[in-house]
Amino acid sequence: MSTTPTPGRPHVLIVGCGFGGMEAARALRRAEVDITMVDKTNHHLFQPLLYQVATAGLAAPSIAAPIRLLFRQQPNVTTLLGEVIYIDHEARALHLADGTRLAWDHLILAAGATHSYFGNDAWEPVAPGLKTLADAFEVRRRVLVSFEAAEVETDPARRRALLTFAVIGAGPTGVEMAGTLVEIARHTLKGEFRNVDPATAEVLLIEGGSRVLQAMPPSLSQRALEQLQGLGVQVRLNAKVTAIDSRGLEVESPFSDGGAGVGSHRIECGCVIWAAGVAASPLGRLVAEATGAETDRSGRVKVLPDLSLPNHPDISVIGDLAAATSQRPGQDPKPVPGVSPAAKQMGRTAARNILNRIAGRPTEAFRYRDFGNLATIGRNSAVVDLGTPFGPLRFSGRLAWLFWLFAHIYFLIGFRNRFVVLMDWASAYWSFQRHARVVADVKGRGEL
Amino acid sequence: MSTTPTPGRPHVLIVGCGFGGMEAARALRRAEVDITMVDKTNHHLFQPLLYQVATAGLAAPSIAAPIRLLFRQQPNVTTLLGEVIYIDHEARALHLADGTRLAWDHLILAAGATHSYFGNDAWEPVAPGLKTLADAFEVRRRVLVSFEAAEVETDPARRRALLTFAVIGAGPTGVEMAGTLVEIARHTLKGEFRNVDPATAEVLLIEGGSRVLQAMPPSLSQRALEQLQGLGVQVRLNAKVTAIDSRGLEVESPFSDGGAGVGSHRIECGCVIWAAGVAASPLGRLVAEATGAETDRSGRVKVLPDLSLPNHPDISVIGDLAAATSQRPGQDPKPVPGVSPAAKQMGRTAARNILNRIAGRPTEAFRYRDFGNLATIGRNSAVVDLGTPFGPLRFSGRLAWLFWLFAHIYFLIGFRNRFVVLMDWASAYWSFQRHARVVADVKGRGEL
Repeated sequence: MSTTPTPGRPHVLIVGCGFGGMEAARALRRAEVDITMVDKTNHHLFQPLLYQVATAGLAAPSIAAPIRLLFRQQPNVTTLLGEVIYIDHEARALHLADGTRLAWDHLILAAGATHSYFGNDAWEPVAPGLKTLADAFEVRRRVLVSFEAAEVETDPARRRALLTFAVIGAGPTGVEMAGTLVEIARHTLKGEFRNVDPATAEVLLIEGGSRVLQAMPPSLSQRALEQLQGLGVQVRLNAKVTAIDSRGLEVESPFSDGGAGVGSHRIECGCVIWAAGVAASPLGRLVAEATGAETDRSGRVKVLPDLSLPNHPDISVIGDLAAATSQRPGQDPKPVPGVSPAAKQMGRTAARNILNRIAGRPTEAFRYRDFGNLATIGRNSAVVDLGTPFGPLRFSGRLAWLFWLFAHIYFLIGFRNRFVVLMDWASAYWSFQRHARVVADVKGRGEL
Repeated sequence: MSTTPTPGRPHVLIVGCGFGGMEAARALRRAEVDITMVDKTNHHLFQPLLYQVATAGLAAPSIAAPIRLLFRQQPNVTTLLGEVIYIDHEARALHLADGTRLAWDHLILAAGATHSYFGNDAWEPVAPGLKTLADAFEVRRRVLVSFEAAEVETDPARRRALLTFAVIGAGPTGVEMAGTLVEIARHTLKGEFRNVDPATAEVLLIEGGSRVLQAMPPSLSQRALEQLQGLGVQVRLNAKVTAIDSRGLEVESPFSDGGAGVGSHRIECGCVIWAAGVAASPLGRLVAEATGAETDRSGRVKVLPDLSLPNHPDISVIGDLAAATSQRPGQDPKPVPGVSPAAKQMGRTAARNILNRIAGRPTEAFRYRDFGNLATIGRNSAVVDLGTPFGPLRFSGRLAWLFWLFAHIYFLIGFRNRFVVLMDWASAYWSFQRHARVVADVKGRGEL
């Protein structure tokens, strides 16, 4: 083993430096423990702004901080780049793909989530999702290259298809992507093409449910729908995607025949973006196999109220990898949503419970504190639902957009990133430009 | 054909939007011609700072400008993304990989240069060069992942190898890479590793010739050598690389046995960077085959004094793709060096000669105006050789570094990029940090 924890000091092993894992390590900064942080990338990613990298508004380094740099000043953390391939719960050790073996006294699994294509894995190469920086570069490439291909295309039908963009799933990411794509087509690319008019591009937002942003109260879903339509997004609700290939997709929807029935039709498009399904990291399955823990339909690991696994008090699972519930006094237990504030709170609880166990104290149950929910839609458009001591505070439009903007700047890590992002946004707002319109490799990783 | 030039207006087709092609198109901004700019990427790249993307100092969008955005305000330019696969000189038309056919009245070929491994093409996957953004990301990945692998490695010999970096070729790019790698190892990564000390990393700069920066006068090569050694780079002159694989390389050098003879030895290293050979773009061969033009040993196309091809006055070749000579009155013709000021000057001459031909005037011979030469080595280290009316002005050290810095900021395109780069540099200078230390895909494109 390459890292030799100090004898006598408990060794806390954390897998995944997203919001949950990072917060757990930070919460242990003054603790008499040795921490090893393992991640399969070298950076912590500020995922709420990943769609801005995908839509060329931000450069990747603005939303990604090197993990080692985050823990430079925290000498009890050792950072390792590696991928977990095996969990040996009897020996209390993880095995990494490069052969490294890491023993733990306390293990926190925080490996997050990935896309789910609901069993249609063949859709992945033709409809990339948005979870990693590599995903964002791929989406950026597809969007920009689709406009490029339209400029060269001579067949009018194919040209129209290349100017049609479909976003599947109207959760926060889908709504942000659709709103921003319209802005790129109408404003950013204005005046740059000679054979096509990018402003004629169509952006479709396809949602299986009956409203957008289903985590929001219905009144804000309605506001968001109106703002999307106001920007020019074509929203199709109750629409089920039945097929996707490299040239388009098939949709079953009640609107497609213009009447009340359900019809199936095909949409030719240049670019399909998947924002519909989320599943737990494959690490969830490894844990379940190793410990006998149960998983839910999304592959998330069911945890006890204190976030540890049944019969395995040394293993905690947090963030999007966990199917956790939260119970407030006098209320029924509620499932914890897969959002970054919840992951951070779980990280802090898991850290405190490790200290509780070391000290021989009872562990505490996780209680999710819900500060509210917010989503942006596009220029001057957003919806906000805040919990306050006086009841919910709900607003939308430009004020909500400013609130969203400053909340995201506030939670971004590092002064430099905050300042750069703010500057990029100010410049984008006034000029309608997006400075990161760069495709390093136009051939990309998949087919187009 | 997708772009239909205006009848009666000459159609100028430009291949490649590097310094030469971009400058040619700009020089024709007020001309009564239709211009089509074809490039296989979507961006103009400020190549002199590419090594900073490779060494995580700058984000890619800071040195890459979308080609369409550059010509947004120039309505006589149509920008197309495409790769030339065939030149039909009889029909005066190019064919692109996607099937598009583009006819020309005047053709400017400015496709630049690529790496040359001097016939050892097997070295390419194990020793990436530095010409495109994709190359820079790959080099960044290899450098950062090599430090990461060292932190996990338990075998001391392999760990030492992973902390050994070899740069082959001591031209401007090799010197900049080597100087910056030392800075990363000694300063940027300081305090971030627990199992290894990155400051113990060794950076080797391997050069086949007898001095570094051979385009510079010998006195400045000597200054550069001293500055490199002062920073901690191990410079090996007169050293010939005879083999490279994924774990190291073999070098023949007069120093390797400590005496006067020549010996061959092996160096184990984590990362090899190729900065040694440059060859013309493969387009040079296509042109030579189509027109019977001659090429030199690097595959560059030999042009007439007015930059056109023999018997093909409608075709000009400029920049790194051209083997051009320049003759000043009373002097012998001198070969034009492969530097960006020369490419820009050729672009302007080629554009003027198109206007000369349209007007029935004689064409002018290209005259290279040499303003001098400068190269940076690292923090506060650079060498400058300026031509002035009073003779050459040569200086080195901190003043030269400041001169280099402001010259590069000045020539960077776009106010935003200039400002962002200046800010990044200021922040890097004071903090020793490099903000773009992000690897999107740690597995990358090649083997490690």
